[in-house]
Parts: sequence; C-alpha cells; structure tokens
Amino acid sequence: MDVTVAIDCMGGDHGAVVTVPATRGFLRSHPRAKAVLVGRPEALEQAKGEFGDEFGDRLNFQVAAEVVDMDESPVSAMKNKKDSSMRVAIELVKSGRADAAVSAGNTGALMAISRFVLKMLPDIDRPAIASALPTMKGRSYVLDLGANVDCSAAHLLQFGVMGAMLVAAIEHTDRPTVGLLNIGEEAIKGNEVVKQAGELLRASGLNFVGNVEGDDIYKGASDVVVCDGFVGNVALKTSEGLAQMLASFLREEFGRGLLSKCAALVALPVLKRFKRRVDHRIYNGAVLLGLRGVVVKSHGSADAFAFEQAIYRAAEAASNQLIERIGERMAAMDGVQQA
Amino acid sequence: MDVTVAIDCMGGDHGAVVTVPATRGFLRSHPRAKAVLVGRPEALEQAKGEFGDEFGDRLNFQVAAEVVDMDESPVSAMKNKKDSSMRVAIELVKSGRADAAVSAGNTGALMAISRFVLKMLPDIDRPAIASALPTMKGRSYVLDLGANVDCSAAHLLQFGVMGAMLVAAIEHTDRPTVGLLNIGEEAIKGNEVVKQAGELLRASGLNFVGNVEGDDIYKGASDVVVCDGFVGNVALKTSEGLAQMLASFLREEFGRGLLSKCAALVALPVLKRFKRRVDHRIYNGAVLLGLRGVVVKSHGSADAFAFEQAIYRAAEAASNQLIERIGERMAAMDGVQQA
Repeated sequence: MDVTVAIDCMGGDHGAVVTVPATRGFLRSHPRAKAVLVGRPEALEQAKGEFGDEFGDRLNFQVAAEVVDMDESPVSAMKNKKDSSMRVAIELVKSGRADAAVSAGNTGALMAISRFVLKMLPDIDRPAIASALPTMKGRSYVLDLGANVDCSAAHLLQFGVMGAMLVAAIEHTDRPTVGLLNIGEEAIKGNEVVKQAGELLRASGLNFVGNVEGDDIYKGASDVVVCDGFVGNVALKTSEGLAQMLASFLREEFGRGLLSKCAALVALPVLKRFKRRVDHRIYNGAVLLGLRGVVVKSHGSADAFAFEQAIYRAAEAASNQLIERIGERMAAMDGVQQA
Repeated sequence: MDVTVAIDCMGGDHGAVVTVPATRGFLRSHPRAKAVLVGRPEALEQAKGEFGDEFGDRLNFQVAAEVVDMDESPVSAMKNKKDSSMRVAIELVKSGRADAAVSAGNTGALMAISRFVLKMLPDIDRPAIASALPTMKGRSYVLDLGANVDCSAAHLLQFGVMGAMLVAAIEHTDRPTVGLLNIGEEAIKGNEVVKQAGELLRASGLNFVGNVEGDDIYKGASDVVVCDGFVGNVALKTSEGLAQMLASFLREEFGRGLLSKCAALVALPVLKRFKRRVDHRIYNGAVLLGLRGVVVKSHGSADAFAFEQAIYRAAEAASNQLIERIGERMAAMDGVQQA
C-alpha cells in the first residue's frame, strides 16, 4: 500500500516503548508504506537512534512540544496543548502530508481535536467510533462505541453507511451486510428511534438485514452492527469483562492442584491456539468515522503487536479510499435521508 | 421454607418433561415447601402417576384448559386464553393459595398477565425483569432486562430499590450495593436520564456506589446493576453470545487432531469444573419485579435442573417477604422520589 501514516509516538499508557517497535513492525511488513513519527524531541532522538537507517525516507520525524495526558479533558487538550503530538499528527492528515493518523491517546481528546482540525464530512452530523469484534464467522464491526449517547434515527442511518463503507474498504467485502441492534423481548421490540432507523436503513440501498440481537453480534449475523454509543459501549465493555472473567476462571481451574497443573501442561498447545483465536489485540484500532480524514484510536494499554494492528488498519482504510467512499455513498443517498 | 409455589406445568420448550422432575427435585430438597402444578388435565394425570404418593398434601394439582404458545402475542394470550396454565398459576398467587408463581412460558405474555392479574405495587410505575449473573466475586443482579425500553430517572431509581430488596431477600445481603450502568468514554459520561438517576440514587438512602461500566458487571462491582431494559437486554444477550462463541472455539480447538483430543481427555476434569463454575443454569429464573406478588420467569429452553433453580428462587423470594420489603422501602422513600 502506497500510504503515509502519522503516528502519535507519545500517546497511550506506554508511549514510545510501544509505538516505536510497532512502527518498525508495520514498515517492515509493508515495504511501500511510509510513516511520520510525531513526538517530543527527546523521544524522537532516541527513536532515531533505535531505527538507524533501516527505512530511509520511508520514515520521517515531526517534533511536537506537548503530550495530551490520558485523563486530560478534551477542552483542556484543545485549549492548552496546541502543539501536542496528537494534534500535530492529525494536522499532518489535514495538510495532506499524511493519509491517516493513529494515536493511543485519550479518546475524548482525540475525537475533539480530530473534529476541530479535520471537520466533518458533508451530510454526517456526528462522528462515530467503530471497532471490529471476532465472531463465529470471522469479524463484525460495531458502531457507535461511545461517541454519541443520544442518537436520532438519521444518525443511526449514517452509522450504517459509514460502517458499511469501512468494511468495504478494510475487509474488501462487496456490499457488506448491515444489522440494527435491537432487543427481541416479546413484550416490546425496541424504542421509537430504533424502529424509525430500521425504516431508514431498509430504504437506504444498503445491504440491510434487519434487526440483530445482542447474541447475534458474536454469531456474525451481519458485517456491520449499528447502535447508539451508550448501547455499543456497554456491549463492548460487558464483553471485555466477561472474557476477562472466563479467562481468569480457566486459569484458576488449571492452577488448582498438581493434577490440574499437569493437565494444563498437556493442554497448553490447545489453550494457546484458543487464546490466539480470540486475541483481542488483533482487533485493536477503533476507527473514528465521519471526519474528513482517517483517524484510528488504539487502546491505551496496547502493546507493540496491538498498536501495529491499529497502524495497519489506518493504512488499509486510507489506501482504500474510506473517506471518499463515505462521501460518495452519502451524496448518492441524499433523497433517502430526507424521506 | 414454609411456602407454596404455583408451577406452570406446560410452559417452555419442553413442558411437563422438564417441569415435573424439577418440581420433584424442589420438593425433595425443601421438605417444608409445597407446590401446585398447573396444567392440562392429561398432563396432570400423567404427572400424578409419576409422582405417586411421595409428597402427600405438599403437592397439589390445578387443571387449566389452555396453554399460551411460546410465540403468542401478549394481547392474544390475555384475550383468548383466560384459562391458560400460566394465568391460572398467577391467579393462585392473587387468591393467596400460592406465594409465588413460576413459568417458562413466553415473557411478554407472562408479564402482561401478571400485571393484569396481580397489579403493580404502589409507587412503582413499571415492572422490571431482574436476573443474576456470575461475577468474579459471586453474583450480581441486573435490571431491567427488557421490560422497559424508555426509562425515566425515576424508573431507574425504582429499579434500584427493587433490585436491592431482591438481593436482600434472596441472597440475604445486608444493604446490597447498587451501581448505575453508564459509559466511561472520556468525551461524554452518559445521557441526561442516567445523570439524573445518579442523583436520585445518591439521595435514596440505598447503598449506592455510583456509576459502573460494562466490564464492572463481571468484576462484581455492585450487587445490583441498574439500567434501562434496552441496554440490559443487549448486555445480557451479548454476554450469552460471547460465552457461546468462546465455548464453541474451545471445543473446536480441543477437537482438532488426535493430540488435542488426548489433551482434552487429560484436561476433562478441569474443563468440567470450569463449566460448572459458569453454568448458566444456576442463574436461571428471572424475577418480575414491581408486582403485588412473586412471579419468576424461567428460560424457555431450561432443563429440569435449571427450572428447579427458578422454582427455588421464587420460593426464596416469597418466603423472605420480597413484596413487603419493596413496598416498605418505597413508602419510606416517598419524599426522595419527588425531590
């Protein structure tokens, strides 16, 4: 892929310790890709020493004086840190010097700065956060994951379009299926907003498969799962919590007494395969959608392998014209949305 | 426990095949408890034959001419099946001949009929569905799980009260902790309703621990997790879907080749312990709260072991004065809620 990614060297819980080896991994496995590492002078100096001449002009460095703290408010990050590594990375996208930006910094600040610097796409009212999840059939993308707590039906329709274009761009899926997250209790079938969103999606020309329920997400019932940010965030975090609990119970049971420990040794290759299969690091890299540029948010606690996936996802989205696809699809739908 | 449970013999995917052995199991393990089995004449005749004289006057039978179908609409069940096993079981609670009712029949119909027959408790606007989930620390109760899609802050407060009283009654927890399900994204911290509900809960005199996020549910951050029915239903079903996917992946990996199958044999006792620990059947039996009587809904696909847990939960709630506890707590809070 012929693409340049701006990488916030400082963001996340670990900063350069993670972002530098991840950048190296990415450039090694994508021989035509380029990167710009953005960070404080001393961090970049050290990185330059570590990289040596391996990547020549495929790797550039851009100094930024400040770093947005992980718990800093978006307002403070916007007002007081105009020369932050996060912001400079996004400005590289704005100026066209990079095709995408990646940061493991705090989500609120990343969203606010991205929105301020890049602006929204026409016809998109709200940005959304989309992330991949493993399913029985492969992977699905869920959005929104927390950027919007109160959504209208039109917002959910826009999420559907953006999600479908995301999957088309980075998974190379022709006409991805789109499902609307709803509840199947007999007494009631969703609230008014969700019902209306269903009608809009049905008329949208997207490959809409109708309502999906919580358990359908992991069955892989649709490539894209649309929901408001409150529901999406709860679904994602509940999943994280459950996976952690199950992993911890499994570890405890395999550690309970000598016999179990022997069983664990014997089962180790199997357990490792299982672990690899559900390794959440593969899915790292949530895409901030609706902006006039590709911005990907890595988990703050990502390791180098996980952060590399986020860089890869950003590069893939940019080199497959994610932004243009969304713009064109929204323009083609102008009539539908008003209906 | 000195309690009589009315059991809908016909409900669920399996009917009497499940409910009869579950009733036997319950009566055997609770020598002072009584049961009334409600169902069609032929089903009851067969059950009588199977039970013989084992339980004497601890077991009674009540004929009902009809059965609510699993996919029947609540309206149809209410209008066309006035002599259904579900309804007759609930009417036994109303008339005082039973202290609680249990059914594996369809949720919508059970809720509608319960509400119509038993009526709501004073000061409770909406019924809610609460269920236990396993956590790192034991178990927590989440509500609402799907009865209400649009909730006000006052409704969420009422859910908090009902959930706390439920845990006090059936887990014998003194001053159970109550958490409010929210999202922790930096950009936004929940919608207006949730913020207001937080203030009401803080002033309620309940043991309110503040906001909890999706992953906190399984960490056991609070004994009660309050949310609206849409969010709760998605969280529950997403968890079911994830657990099924992980179990299926684990089975697949242990079935992949001869070596893995040998490993599975060696690891079998450990895997069984693990499975028992997260056995969802233990948590079967969602409590319909807010009614003037104890009604418990079993999963439609429950087996006898699972259905017995639902009977046990109903008996425990009734014998520990769940309804009285909720009524008293709401009455004591009259001032708070208006504030």
